[in-house]
Amino acid sequence: MPVAGKVPVAGEVPVAGKVPVAGEPVAGEALARYLREQATEFLRALRQHRESSTEEAAEPALALRAAARRISGALHTFRPLLDADWSDELRTELAWLSGTLAREHAYASRLDRLIGALHRLSPSGPGPGRSGSVPAQHGGLTVGAAKAGALIERQLTLARTRAHSTALQALGSSRFHAVADGVAVLASEVPLRRDASGHPLAPFAADVEARLGEAVAALPLVRAGHPYNAEALLHGLGADAAPESQDAPWHQVRLLLRLHRYAQETNGTEPGHDLRLLGAGQALDRHRDASGAATAAASAARTPRIAPATAYALGVLHADQRHEVEAARFAFQAVWRRAPDRAVTTP
Amino acid sequence: MPVAGKVPVAGEVPVAGKVPVAGEPVAGEALARYLREQATEFLRALRQHRESSTEEAAEPALALRAAARRISGALHTFRPLLDADWSDELRTELAWLSGTLAREHAYASRLDRLIGALHRLSPSGPGPGRSGSVPAQHGGLTVGAAKAGALIERQLTLARTRAHSTALQALGSSRFHAVADGVAVLASEVPLRRDASGHPLAPFAADVEARLGEAVAALPLVRAGHPYNAEALLHGLGADAAPESQDAPWHQVRLLLRLHRYAQETNGTEPGHDLRLLGAGQALDRHRDASGAATAAASAARTPRIAPATAYALGVLHADQRHEVEAARFAFQAVWRRAPDRAVTTP
Repeated sequence: MPVAGKVPVAGEVPVAGKVPVAGEPVAGEALARYLREQATEFLRALRQHRESSTEEAAEPALALRAAARRISGALHTFRPLLDADWSDELRTELAWLSGTLAREHAYASRLDRLIGALHRLSPSGPGPGRSGSVPAQHGGLTVGAAKAGALIERQLTLARTRAHSTALQALGSSRFHAVADGVAVLASEVPLRRDASGHPLAPFAADVEARLGEAVAALPLVRAGHPYNAEALLHGLGADAAPESQDAPWHQVRLLLRLHRYAQETNGTEPGHDLRLLGAGQALDRHRDASGAATAAASAARTPRIAPATAYALGVLHADQRHEVEAARFAFQAVWRRAPDRAVTTP
Repeated sequence: MPVAGKVPVAGEVPVAGKVPVAGEPVAGEALARYLREQATEFLRALRQHRESSTEEAAEPALALRAAARRISGALHTFRPLLDADWSDELRTELAWLSGTLAREHAYASRLDRLIGALHRLSPSGPGPGRSGSVPAQHGGLTVGAAKAGALIERQLTLARTRAHSTALQALGSSRFHAVADGVAVLASEVPLRRDASGHPLAPFAADVEARLGEAVAALPLVRAGHPYNAEALLHGLGADAAPESQDAPWHQVRLLLRLHRYAQETNGTEPGHDLRLLGAGQALDRHRDASGAATAAASAARTPRIAPATAYALGVLHADQRHEVEAARFAFQAVWRRAPDRAVTTP
């Protein structure tokens, strides 16, 4: 991969030696510091991941992904301040990496969520994590819940195992080594444009915030604010992709919200200060998780030759998770409305 | 049936000739007037029902049941003012009659509700009332929705037809003629106790209201007030009767609310004046309907040899209706909290 091998183009200057003007952090310096910090964190997590057993590797993998997302976010938001080609390429590669690493975790948490939901739906049904071990109870439906749990566990465990192999393969690939080298460059010498330090960071961050605001404004928040609006299950038995297309704008807001949070971090704002943004992000994480879980239940129901009782349980489970989607939207709009002036966020 | 043949016991006096004291309606007189009105309405609806074709019979049947419920409610609430044996017996027979007449209507509206829900869940799925006529569309799930609609239509139409026959049979039976004769007695001469006119009606109505208040207080209203609490689907895949047992206290409140409304009517309060009680009643009607529809979907899923796609659609439908149950509880608690002083109700 060319990322690491590429020499920073002419015009880029390391910012480290510059002196801040009038006590305000110079734009380029703040950005470079943030990128260096995150790159260092990435390399630390990578080292820790390499030294961990499979059981211990989950935490460093999370840290690695968090740092990758933050680097990628800063490269995107403050793109005009950076060497564009170099950072675009690193961003693409970081997206590939965090996507690859995220999959294993996503399947694991989807399994937990679905088995947890089955447990709630069927008290004598599958316990968390060992659905197959509980003998079928009285009544066809509880048998169905147990069988549905076993089927989901089988399918998601297989998907997770495959994702684990793919992640291991990725971490050993030359493509990954190129990414790591690129991040290592970032840790020592950020490829800022020559005129970067003259620009303040705020307009770029404000741009992200404006895009976030527009995306939120396009959401059906009034409808989401009416509890039990039954929107999330609308057309839930229609064409297979119907619920997913309805979820997409919410997923988009989730990504923009994260980008906005990272831009705030770059500006030196602690994200913990803005409880509203945190709550909104948590609601959209839940939205994303429930949406994925509902799709997994629907997809398990398309397994050939399953018993009707299993299919019935998967239908109930699908609808349950679609209602979780709706609940997450309700939670999001409630959090979002709470403090529209966002007085807390500006430091 | 002995109702009609029974001669009012000694101690009963017709109240018609009594003079109201100080402009206030005498208790016995108000009660007798209400019972006479409802008995007259019962007989009018019965006559209309006999003269109607099958298509036109639905409206008089509703009126017949409404009058039967009101008579029964008044006999129950103001029991101490009436000849107890006579009114208990008429009440039992009225309950049998309205139960028998209600079934056909319940199956019809349950079918409408479920086909409507399937239509919402599957845009290319079954249209209202003719699920079987739409050809199966793309994707297993839409086929499933169409098949689920056809199955439910078959089962509920059969149940409805049977209920219709049973109702016709009941209306031609000597048991029914005895009830009608009992109501005819009521229309001319209410079997009040000799000392009834001395008692005010208010304490009896207050007693019903107190029972209603206690029953509402025992409901999990705080939980119901949290949108998307997922309570209604709790154990939804467990033992078959799990959701029904959770619904019972709400059904009980529905009946007490109705009894309370009828007691208000007897006291001369127009029920339309209390929007809060009307709204609460509507929410609990919706609760009852959704609960029955959810049970019908679950029961259809236990039909032997159905396709997995059909069972899946029925699972989604069941969960959808259980969420309607939850939505109705949310609506009830919102209405109930709205005006706790009930200033509007006292005339």
